[in-house]
Amino acid sequence: MGENVIGVDFGTESARAVVVRLTDGVELAESVMPYPHGVIDAELPGTGPGTGARLGADWALQHPADWLQVLEHTVRDALAASGQRPETVVGIAVDVTACTIVPTTAAGHPLCLDPAFATEPHAWPKLWKHHASQPQANLINERASAAGEPFLADYGGFLSSEWLLPKALQTLQEAPAVFAATERLIEAQDWVTWQLTGIEARSAQAAGFKATFRAEADGYPTPSFLDSVHPGFGSVLGMLSSEVHLAGEKVGELQPEWAERLGLPAGIAVAIGNMDAQVAMVACGVTTPGRMVLVMGTSVCNLLLADDKHEVEGIAGVVRDAVIPGLWAYEAGQAGVGDLFGWFVRTQVPESYAIEAREAGISVFDHLERLAAAIPAGANPVVALDWWNGNRSVLTDAHLSGLFVGMTLATRPEHLYRALLEAVAFGQKVIIDAFEGAGVPVTELVACGGLPHRNALLMQILADVTGRSIGIAATTQSGALGAAIHAAVAAGSTAGGYDTLEEAAAALAGLGRTVEPDPAATAAYSDAYGDYRRLHDFFGRAQADLMHGLRRRAHAATACGQAIPAPTTPTTEQPTE
Amino acid sequence: MGENVIGVDFGTESARAVVVRLTDGVELAESVMPYPHGVIDAELPGTGPGTGARLGADWALQHPADWLQVLEHTVRDALAASGQRPETVVGIAVDVTACTIVPTTAAGHPLCLDPAFATEPHAWPKLWKHHASQPQANLINERASAAGEPFLADYGGFLSSEWLLPKALQTLQEAPAVFAATERLIEAQDWVTWQLTGIEARSAQAAGFKATFRAEADGYPTPSFLDSVHPGFGSVLGMLSSEVHLAGEKVGELQPEWAERLGLPAGIAVAIGNMDAQVAMVACGVTTPGRMVLVMGTSVCNLLLADDKHEVEGIAGVVRDAVIPGLWAYEAGQAGVGDLFGWFVRTQVPESYAIEAREAGISVFDHLERLAAAIPAGANPVVALDWWNGNRSVLTDAHLSGLFVGMTLATRPEHLYRALLEAVAFGQKVIIDAFEGAGVPVTELVACGGLPHRNALLMQILADVTGRSIGIAATTQSGALGAAIHAAVAAGSTAGGYDTLEEAAAALAGLGRTVEPDPAATAAYSDAYGDYRRLHDFFGRAQADLMHGLRRRAHAATACGQAIPAPTTPTTEQPTE
Repeated sequence: MGENVIGVDFGTESARAVVVRLTDGVELAESVMPYPHGVIDAELPGTGPGTGARLGADWALQHPADWLQVLEHTVRDALAASGQRPETVVGIAVDVTACTIVPTTAAGHPLCLDPAFATEPHAWPKLWKHHASQPQANLINERASAAGEPFLADYGGFLSSEWLLPKALQTLQEAPAVFAATERLIEAQDWVTWQLTGIEARSAQAAGFKATFRAEADGYPTPSFLDSVHPGFGSVLGMLSSEVHLAGEKVGELQPEWAERLGLPAGIAVAIGNMDAQVAMVACGVTTPGRMVLVMGTSVCNLLLADDKHEVEGIAGVVRDAVIPGLWAYEAGQAGVGDLFGWFVRTQVPESYAIEAREAGISVFDHLERLAAAIPAGANPVVALDWWNGNRSVLTDAHLSGLFVGMTLATRPEHLYRALLEAVAFGQKVIIDAFEGAGVPVTELVACGGLPHRNALLMQILADVTGRSIGIAATTQSGALGAAIHAAVAAGSTAGGYDTLEEAAAALAGLGRTVEPDPAATAAYSDAYGDYRRLHDFFGRAQADLMHGLRRRAHAATACGQAIPAPTTPTTEQPTE
Repeated sequence: MGENVIGVDFGTESARAVVVRLTDGVELAESVMPYPHGVIDAELPGTGPGTGARLGADWALQHPADWLQVLEHTVRDALAASGQRPETVVGIAVDVTACTIVPTTAAGHPLCLDPAFATEPHAWPKLWKHHASQPQANLINERASAAGEPFLADYGGFLSSEWLLPKALQTLQEAPAVFAATERLIEAQDWVTWQLTGIEARSAQAAGFKATFRAEADGYPTPSFLDSVHPGFGSVLGMLSSEVHLAGEKVGELQPEWAERLGLPAGIAVAIGNMDAQVAMVACGVTTPGRMVLVMGTSVCNLLLADDKHEVEGIAGVVRDAVIPGLWAYEAGQAGVGDLFGWFVRTQVPESYAIEAREAGISVFDHLERLAAAIPAGANPVVALDWWNGNRSVLTDAHLSGLFVGMTLATRPEHLYRALLEAVAFGQKVIIDAFEGAGVPVTELVACGGLPHRNALLMQILADVTGRSIGIAATTQSGALGAAIHAAVAAGSTAGGYDTLEEAAAALAGLGRTVEPDPAATAAYSDAYGDYRRLHDFFGRAQADLMHGLRRRAHAATACGQAIPAPTTPTTEQPTE
């Protein structure tokens, strides 16, 4: 009988492995390592002098060799730190920030590692937050809408620029040779699992949420529709697969080469990989309808289970069986959250505050939070639109941008900071209102990820603005624990694991504290929420071309090489999942 | 024959005396002293424990004893520094930030210095930037508009909350006992001149621009109109005077008591006091139509002479004979300029930038200016509305507030800072367009005050956005030099001075360098100016109630004692006039 499983969570900047005890879900040890190349958003890693190609605005790539290097290091390191013998481990699974896609050969060799393609940006894995495919997303959406394609409604009426088809279409349009050379186009978690097992398997979850695959309907969009978007685009279907695996399924066994690299027994169960936000749902212990899970980090993902499918405005997707077999899983979310707070602390907090924080022996974040907490609910004269990263909710528009309004000479940094926290909460209320308006109940909220454990003020504002209690996951590593829960199901009860996700989640996951809304504060936010909705509808709908023009200006500056160099000071990122 | 005159400029935070040579306008020496009580905007100076009354939002007062103390110190100090004998001085004049008004007894004793009124905020001089009279301004404007009062058109259709009638009406409504006890209500420069000469005289300039006095028409608004605004308000006319003095006129002679305090000969000419911005016009050498003078400091005042009167949207006023006898003088302006930049540097520039500036041995302002200068014309993705202090131009609405739009995670402080500079220039273009649209030509710009000499990037952006060359005044002390020019005219040619303002300005004032617009940059700003106009019309007109609501929220927080205490770090003010 096994005693432990391992989950590995691939985030935006780093990956984390955790060793989880099968009896009670205790996380015995963990290990984190940043990707050596980080997020590649300025120029390609040079393969020789002068070969590092410059990237345009909104590009974001990753290096596939980074994934394997951090996988090996973190698994070995976490296992050593746990004090457990390798033979106690009976399963492993990964999860990844989706949609991150790798163009490869038929054998799974990434094109970017082929010297012939190394200087070609489109040959590299496009990270989830690569937003340069927005024109392609617009084109697909426009054609699908005109043609009355039925898949569109399952994705809130729009595909996001972050998804597989827009990213692939951008390659076809901008680098047809790369597109022609691509034999397989595969999600990062499926590519990593392929390395571990020797088996190319596709996650039903990622295919459903990010590649527009509808198992219960027609599968992917038809070749004729895709060809109508751009001649030859239908051939992308030959790079994908319609044989998909449900969450918790076992793909195969850990191959000897990788068993040696990871220091684990060969032959243990490898579960199908999944998406980081979706696996967090089971890590919060949520496997039934009604409770909305907020996976809160640099961005926020909302997940909700329901018995039925409804048309909900601005959802990212609704996919059957994707999280819990038998239920529909809705995904929605906000594009910039922890990212915004990091930006604010990095660029908008004066030296005097940094000095005060040092003198008080606290972080600048904590200092700002204390000052912002002194502003009563509904009394902040500054209102923000939280669209620094675009809008990924009811507007589904990556080319929107941020806004602050209401400043006077008496405005201080804490007013602006609190306005960002409030805008995130208002944005969450817009999403909840859309679900409830469509007949999908949201009874309470459950939060996980890095932010809920670090930003108490944000959680209280969220509870107050939405008028709902928020349970906070006990784990601080919902991605890695979620992956481990899937490994436990892939291993099965005969190996000491579990036979269903419900059983595994009940045994291994749970909630910590609960944040209750204050009804007086909920009422006090009513005016400010009204202001937010007016600004939302003006800048996001009636006059959306204004912000679109500003984005074009940012792009033009980058394209002309006039972008100002990135700051040399180190990034102070808000801790995330 | 005299050799010198003295001008004393009373600014917002300090006063400055300058000794000017009558032959060529050379400023031989100057002296500056801050007001001991500064701007009183939080609580009244305590006259005993617990008596310092709290002030509401948007209040701004001054202490009349401060004016006399800095007058005595700076005149003595400047004269000593000049090395000139007292007998060489033949005239003195003052100018003040208008409209700053003092309620006094019939003998000119300020009510606030009477212990019976010392704890009553309305007994204190309301500084020009006291904006808490906005409800009263709204009421007067509404009634005057409904009654078809002819004076309204001469003031752009609205009286500002900064002017005499709204400030007086606020006293009547909120502190009727103070109003009843007020025997004279007098502008600060006239009060100071009263002290020096023993003669109560009123400046035609201030009366025309700030007290709604139209010499060529009916004088002040009628008692019946004023009573219709609020019962008893007509009695304010008994606190004023209709015998006004034109700029350059001599009021009387320096009285022995003040001659002794100032260290000057008794009996020298004392000119009628004037407004700081208006005297700057002659200090730029502008005494003819067509060239618009920009007096640039914490705020910006625009002055333009013309042969005729036209109805121009959003002007502060148009007054005949007020600056140069025989010509109409238009005043317009922007409410927050240097103030905005000071706010930005104080609250929005991160520690890393402060460190970089220190390492480079330059100020944070200069560091920001260098970074902002690297962003090409028309390429800034951030657009601002410059209404931190409200709008004092075509919208005439003190309850508007500031806005930034277009932020992404790549936005850096220099984008926001440059957006403020550009917004000030766009705001200036709105004003110029309003003049030209009304048939009043603006051929070129002339700038004076502190900013033009310190902020080269702002001047280039202003020239580029407006498409006009900008001459920059040779003097850096346009207020004090302007006052001295008036003293020279009051002294007259028989005493070594001059007989007209035109002659005095030609002899004593002039321009330094000229900033030329770059036609390519002018074209490049066209899109961003379009964005500014859209935002201007949305937030300033169609949906002005949104920003009004935000202001009310700020006021409510202050009224409930929930305002966050003012920062303890010292103010880093942009140098101003």
